[in-house]
Amino acid sequence: MNVTINGRTQHFRTVSFDSGTNSVRLIEQRLLPHEFKIVSIRNFRDTAKAIRDMVVRGAGAIGATAAYGLAQGIRAFRGGDLNAFSANVATVYQTLKEARPTAVDPVNAMNAVCAAMRAGESIEEKQSLALAAAEEFANEDVRHCEEIGRHGAGLIRNGARILTHCNAGWLAFVDVGTATAPLYAAQTAGKRFHVFCDETRPRSQGATLTAWELAQQGISHQIIADNAAGHLMQRGEMDMVIVGSDRVLGRTGEVTNKIGTYTKAVLAARHKIPFYVAIPLSTIDWNLKRGFDIPIEERSENEVLGAWGILERKKEKGKRKKERCYVRVANPASGARNPGFDVTPPELITGIITPAGILRPRDLWKQREVLKS
Amino acid sequence: MNVTINGRTQHFRTVSFDSGTNSVRLIEQRLLPHEFKIVSIRNFRDTAKAIRDMVVRGAGAIGATAAYGLAQGIRAFRGGDLNAFSANVATVYQTLKEARPTAVDPVNAMNAVCAAMRAGESIEEKQSLALAAAEEFANEDVRHCEEIGRHGAGLIRNGARILTHCNAGWLAFVDVGTATAPLYAAQTAGKRFHVFCDETRPRSQGATLTAWELAQQGISHQIIADNAAGHLMQRGEMDMVIVGSDRVLGRTGEVTNKIGTYTKAVLAARHKIPFYVAIPLSTIDWNLKRGFDIPIEERSENEVLGAWGILERKKEKGKRKKERCYVRVANPASGARNPGFDVTPPELITGIITPAGILRPRDLWKQREVLKS
Repeated sequence: MNVTINGRTQHFRTVSFDSGTNSVRLIEQRLLPHEFKIVSIRNFRDTAKAIRDMVVRGAGAIGATAAYGLAQGIRAFRGGDLNAFSANVATVYQTLKEARPTAVDPVNAMNAVCAAMRAGESIEEKQSLALAAAEEFANEDVRHCEEIGRHGAGLIRNGARILTHCNAGWLAFVDVGTATAPLYAAQTAGKRFHVFCDETRPRSQGATLTAWELAQQGISHQIIADNAAGHLMQRGEMDMVIVGSDRVLGRTGEVTNKIGTYTKAVLAARHKIPFYVAIPLSTIDWNLKRGFDIPIEERSENEVLGAWGILERKKEKGKRKKERCYVRVANPASGARNPGFDVTPPELITGIITPAGILRPRDLWKQREVLKS
Repeated sequence: MNVTINGRTQHFRTVSFDSGTNSVRLIEQRLLPHEFKIVSIRNFRDTAKAIRDMVVRGAGAIGATAAYGLAQGIRAFRGGDLNAFSANVATVYQTLKEARPTAVDPVNAMNAVCAAMRAGESIEEKQSLALAAAEEFANEDVRHCEEIGRHGAGLIRNGARILTHCNAGWLAFVDVGTATAPLYAAQTAGKRFHVFCDETRPRSQGATLTAWELAQQGISHQIIADNAAGHLMQRGEMDMVIVGSDRVLGRTGEVTNKIGTYTKAVLAARHKIPFYVAIPLSTIDWNLKRGFDIPIEERSENEVLGAWGILERKKEKGKRKKERCYVRVANPASGARNPGFDVTPPELITGIITPAGILRPRDLWKQREVLKS
């Protein structure tokens, strides 16, 4: 999407590849929203490190990064020995896989690259096919998000006031995003609307990443405390909710997403406000039988007990110094519970916006043959 | 309540008076939870300043502080001229009233002191009656909270897991508090239970003040993000909710309290978890006809856009330096909405715990003759 730096607006993808220098190019997300920087990564080991160190995060984005990283390692191979080439592919694959061992997207993405490469006979041909497959993986991620946008934009009426939770924006994918895709498509269609970003404690992805995205795209928005949505709904100041998801159960229509999503769905149902979940089809889990069995990660207490932000100080000669730091907010002698995700039942969800159209959560299973293909 | 400093446990009130030095003694609440300090204030102008600067906050606590401040100013009067004495009373009264112009408790408290003083004939007698009336106001505040505790403790069963929101604890009153009173009474009765403190963004009174209070009293507790309560209720990990209130409408049973309270009431109703509101009778507004007319204060954006906390740094020679500071969390180009309170309708409230007993919200109006007397 667009980013404006020093008054100049440019289009960026979250992840891209420079074939001339064989570099993976990433938005350094750990600096956002306070600084925008593209990092060029020259070898697959550093690409793996960037995944591990959270330079890049989000399902689609780390999938594409792993695909590019695999092509990068494959293209760096010199020599004519096919056995040595294959051994190198295995090393690169394993290094990238281990960078985020629980994620499924990097593995799927790299498997697609490996499958495409088989059609090549020479090493050069395989190297070329690997990059083409990685590019195709990234382009497909963008196309899926654009299709979510196309379907979702029709739900947004002119003047709508829309709540989002956490960040399922373009920074989590190669471009466009999922929960944000309908917003960007509606904007392109000339609609005017206003977005409330839940700050999304404890990690504040709404206040940092989603708010940054919307500001860059020139979309009217305000950050609210997670406590405020109920009041705004009660006073008639919200018209719809759109969120993303980490896992949707195909059998039941249950939606796992960032902690607090369930609460917003309960509030929306009480106020008869439509509640939508936007996902690529790869987010659907066709195996698990009930949401209660989804493991809910219990994260570090420190996330709840404090906050990361920018401290600004006046320095000598009136200059200002900015520094990113963690402050402890809570009582020093107290601990915390910190479940990272929650599960929203299908009866609270108006629709699931997918690249294949908008479905009621209970209809995913009925449509499984179409959706799986 | 009890505070432990360097291993020694002492009882403190939030507000007290030292007649020997004619000083108002306050817990310096702006330093909590990171430092505990009692300040002794020697004249009524500084007492007014302490109210204005939020050294002390909370309805009952500022009422008692104003009562003591008035007695303090009256007792500092020297001379025998009754007209000059009356002019001094008027000056002290006005100065303390202007310290928090929208609050009703300081005015009610000071009116009680003035009324009591009329029985005195000499200046000395009036001075003595003023202090006695201020002490009586403070003691009555404590008695009311203790009665709330006595009624509320019966609702807490052994092993209960209780959610609180914001701080309606002893720091907001002279002692004991309202939402916390049932907890302290149940603890005294030997019951065991666990409290989840909503951190209560944006000002984090749950993570700072309530958590500090519970830790000092040795009550088992954990802080949670405001987003987490819905998930914990869904998983069967919460048994009841107790909150305080800034204003309860006697005609309708609607409850105004810190932003986010309404959300917790909606969640509790969905999960059939009892939701209680603990208040002194002075919190009941018998005039206003509907909750929608309660003005909801829109507070500073900066509260939502960042956080106050303690920054800890390593200094030279391995020493650590702690510093209280504000960090900007949110995207620098984004703004915020920050409604400070919300209104919970009576159908979501199981009971209102008052010093006169536990009432259903709709029954306040039926019982108004008893409750007003």
